[in-house]
Amino acid sequence: MKAFRVEVRVMPRATLLDPQGQAVEHALHALGFAEVTAVRIGKHLILEVTAPSKDDAAARARAMCDRLLANPVTEDYSVLVEAA
Amino acid sequence: MKAFRVEVRVMPRATLLDPQGQAVEHALHALGFAEVTAVRIGKHLILEVTAPSKDDAAARARAMCDRLLANPVTEDYSVLVEAA
Repeated sequence: MKAFRVEVRVMPRATLLDPQGQAVEHALHALGFAEVTAVRIGKHLILEVTAPSKDDAAARARAMCDRLLANPVTEDYSVLVEAA
Repeated sequence: MKAFRVEVRVMPRATLLDPQGQAVEHALHALGFAEVTAVRIGKHLILEVTAPSKDDAAARARAMCDRLLANPVTEDYSVLVEAA
């Protein structure tokens, strides 16, 4: 078993409204950052995982996303694995 | 002016407790993902920004982090700029 560092990015689906992102966009405009034309906000998770191989670590991380970390209706996720 | 896509990652500082990450780690263990040894959770923002150059877009994004997007006491951030 080896240790891996898994980076998971969970973002609201592109076709859905993102009220949190819109609120931050308005706040940035109010602070003078007029050059911002869109903001979307999601989660970034860093997991430390032990697994026999990099592929196994990625498969388990995707299973965690499907079970808990991402909402399959409203969110998309991506998984990046590197040796710890 | 060109359009850039700026990815911002905001994470709790490594030296600080991350109660949200700990809660997710416990939930993953309860679901049978015993191979997870640590979880940290932060934010991932995707900004669309217009700027004269990539360097300008990165500088403005760092200013946004310092002013609004990250808490300088408890969080670290990284900025990645690519052409939109």
